[in-house]
Amino acid sequence: MLTNVNANAYILTKPWLEKVKALADVFRVYGIKVYLTARFSAPIEIGGLKTADPLNDSVQDWWKNKVKEIYELIPDFGGFLVKANSEGQPGPQNYHRTHADGANMLANALEPFNGIVMWRAFVYDQQSDDRFKQAYEEFQPLDGKFKQNVLVQVKNGPIDFQPREPFSPLFGAMKKTPVMMEFQLTQEYLGQGTHLVFEAPLFKEVLDADTWAKGKGSLVSRIVDGSLYNFSLNGIAGVANIGNDKNWTGHLFGQSNWYAFGRLAWDYTISSEAIANDWIRQTFTNDAGFIAATKKIMLTSHETLVNYMTPLGLHHIMGNGHHYGPAPWSNNLPRSDWNPVYYHKADSAGIGFDRTATGSNALAQYAPEVRKQFEDLNTCDEKYLLWFHHVNWKHKMKSGRSLWEELCYHYYKGVSDLRDMQQQWNALEKYIDAERFRQVKMLLVIQEQEAVWWRNACLLYFQTFSGMPIPDEQPDKTLEYYKKLNFPYAPGN
Amino acid sequence: MLTNVNANAYILTKPWLEKVKALADVFRVYGIKVYLTARFSAPIEIGGLKTADPLNDSVQDWWKNKVKEIYELIPDFGGFLVKANSEGQPGPQNYHRTHADGANMLANALEPFNGIVMWRAFVYDQQSDDRFKQAYEEFQPLDGKFKQNVLVQVKNGPIDFQPREPFSPLFGAMKKTPVMMEFQLTQEYLGQGTHLVFEAPLFKEVLDADTWAKGKGSLVSRIVDGSLYNFSLNGIAGVANIGNDKNWTGHLFGQSNWYAFGRLAWDYTISSEAIANDWIRQTFTNDAGFIAATKKIMLTSHETLVNYMTPLGLHHIMGNGHHYGPAPWSNNLPRSDWNPVYYHKADSAGIGFDRTATGSNALAQYAPEVRKQFEDLNTCDEKYLLWFHHVNWKHKMKSGRSLWEELCYHYYKGVSDLRDMQQQWNALEKYIDAERFRQVKMLLVIQEQEAVWWRNACLLYFQTFSGMPIPDEQPDKTLEYYKKLNFPYAPGN
Repeated sequence: MLTNVNANAYILTKPWLEKVKALADVFRVYGIKVYLTARFSAPIEIGGLKTADPLNDSVQDWWKNKVKEIYELIPDFGGFLVKANSEGQPGPQNYHRTHADGANMLANALEPFNGIVMWRAFVYDQQSDDRFKQAYEEFQPLDGKFKQNVLVQVKNGPIDFQPREPFSPLFGAMKKTPVMMEFQLTQEYLGQGTHLVFEAPLFKEVLDADTWAKGKGSLVSRIVDGSLYNFSLNGIAGVANIGNDKNWTGHLFGQSNWYAFGRLAWDYTISSEAIANDWIRQTFTNDAGFIAATKKIMLTSHETLVNYMTPLGLHHIMGNGHHYGPAPWSNNLPRSDWNPVYYHKADSAGIGFDRTATGSNALAQYAPEVRKQFEDLNTCDEKYLLWFHHVNWKHKMKSGRSLWEELCYHYYKGVSDLRDMQQQWNALEKYIDAERFRQVKMLLVIQEQEAVWWRNACLLYFQTFSGMPIPDEQPDKTLEYYKKLNFPYAPGN
Repeated sequence: MLTNVNANAYILTKPWLEKVKALADVFRVYGIKVYLTARFSAPIEIGGLKTADPLNDSVQDWWKNKVKEIYELIPDFGGFLVKANSEGQPGPQNYHRTHADGANMLANALEPFNGIVMWRAFVYDQQSDDRFKQAYEEFQPLDGKFKQNVLVQVKNGPIDFQPREPFSPLFGAMKKTPVMMEFQLTQEYLGQGTHLVFEAPLFKEVLDADTWAKGKGSLVSRIVDGSLYNFSLNGIAGVANIGNDKNWTGHLFGQSNWYAFGRLAWDYTISSEAIANDWIRQTFTNDAGFIAATKKIMLTSHETLVNYMTPLGLHHIMGNGHHYGPAPWSNNLPRSDWNPVYYHKADSAGIGFDRTATGSNALAQYAPEVRKQFEDLNTCDEKYLLWFHHVNWKHKMKSGRSLWEELCYHYYKGVSDLRDMQQQWNALEKYIDAERFRQVKMLLVIQEQEAVWWRNACLLYFQTFSGMPIPDEQPDKTLEYYKKLNFPYAPGN
């Protein structure tokens, strides 16, 4: 896919299609097809029509002719990816049509050429008491209404590429529609190009999750590969993290996420450890000492990041806009579900989003067996606790600590594990070239500072609700200091 | 200078100054100082003040403290470049103060540290009947009012980096103020990263021009180097053309302009041929056959571009916004002097901007000897004819042709010389590596197509006024075709 989901219709005009053809000619020898994002309103913007209604004959003809024009240039063109009626993008709902109407109109145009449509389920325009539920609410009722050359592409997870999310309930709920997985390699919410995070454990955790859609063993991976419901058309997407940097990804270890995605796309049974092992050897050296130490860094990095950013099921408490640093206090955007306070719901009684039957009941979107794993506060995997429950600060955790103490414990553990990671890396100087060693070392210095920032900012803020002491070294800055930080040009913004 | 003249105040905040310091540390070992652009309204935007009035005590103190902060980080910081009250940038005139008031306020802050201010003269806010005259009208009366550590930086030329301009009348007119030259290496109006144009002849033509400010031999170069009026503080600026491309400049030959600027900054007596010779040998090979052919390409390239874009003194007839392709018909921007029709003034009687005493009288800004060279239609160097005269289509040129025929001759010669250049390059394959050979070859294919586009679009449009036939192969497309072309994402836009 050459273009961004926030699409621009001009890519479908002749001068740009010639560029697409040039790229297709380059990729073809590797067996790679090119795809484009289709802006739904293109018939208006570049076609001169007055409407983009998918049931309008002129619109349908426009797309048919456009597709024909593309295939004349690129005979093996793959098809379209569409973000419709989501975050300002136009779509069929502008004409009171369904997502299926929109997807099928494009699928009709592509069908004669064996092209496909990937239609994104990341929508949250509809009014709902819980953004978690919206993709399911809009798409599950359309199951069976899509043409055979349409895939529905579902983000991991139900909210938006968080450091940890439970799998989306749409996996398993669409029995007549192939559902694609959309992972994000770019680390939008995971320290972007600055933090060292090996994402294979994150991908695996989700692919290995059991949806119970057809009984035990209905893994997300088996929905993604089409085997559970027998779809020969299937797919997996990764929002790419490659750019203009000489090393492609900015952070050298960002390459390992691009690599892990590629490996898992072909074989999701391979372990994170095996992937790390191969990547290290292909990237640095076959020296056993270096491999062992670096593998340890990589395999613990994701859990470490979750600990210093969003432990115990916290999510979306990043600063608005840049999605980089902590801003759990933030509450200044017009839509409530764009604000961190919507997601953590901290108050004097406790913290977390009640998604059980006493709350938004998002859990009802899962199979009963999955629901059961999450619905009881006392048996719910603590990794997901605050995703599904509003929990009292004094609630006793499995460790014996109170929730507040446990929260402190995780934030402090995140920072201290990160410091261990730093020490481990700094001992590896003798194994590799100075340039790469130093670049990673310097980024880890920044990552350590920012882990402290995350820990202090979040705990000082949540402390205003819990009213309980931090049982460890005290933050050296005040909450006001952290709230006043301002990042007009934060990385990635 | 690390930052753009369209400045952002944030560069002067701590997190960004730390980045500036890092670069200063890198450059220092090469004897290079770093400078920053100063946004005049920074005291408001990042200082929390209510005004940026240069005569206000708090504003002056704010700049003094800011400068002190910078020098604590960067002891050899060079100083500020300022674009004020120009194209939307804030400046002292917002407070009814002069450019000198603004420049001197910053110069006061920098003086204790031996820092300097470079204050740009590219202004055209004032109402005037001719944009050509405005920089002179605003700045010449301020001569003598600037502090000793202020330089006034004057664009080449009086309008805006055109393929050919007469030198700015400010050179020679400021006797008590050091005046810097600002060249543009980026080829904003010269085919940007696509056209092969060696700019040394352009730079030399201007540096060698005689202002007659202190009699014969008062060359622009002697004002720029400070020798004419005895300024030890002097300077020359080049708007850099280096970017993210692997070869730095996109077009390989763009490197030669960066190189030519550097050579001429140290020694403006060196010939264009000598510069081309050295660059070719350092860049490609010492083979005499390659050097001779490539030198010929380079040395004719500027005149060729002038011929197919803006011959005989035409200027600013590029499309608004992108400044890339031809749009002499364009007349849709709110300010008249942003539109091509303002500059060529073609009508049934003739074409060109009358800047003599019967017109805007911009010529009065030059020394009498210079004025004399330009003011008579019959003796004016035809290179500058339409810069200074509105000339009848039937006017007899030195060649014996009518103006219309001469215009056609130049446009057609531009294209045919470009085709010769292509053939010359295509014969050089055996001398150099395939990658660089092919890249230049492919860009010349585009350049040839665009030279034809320039020629056809301009002549078909001007023909609607002259009513005379094109005495050569006829354009294969209509004027309407060229007018309808639309470039929402033109290079450089």
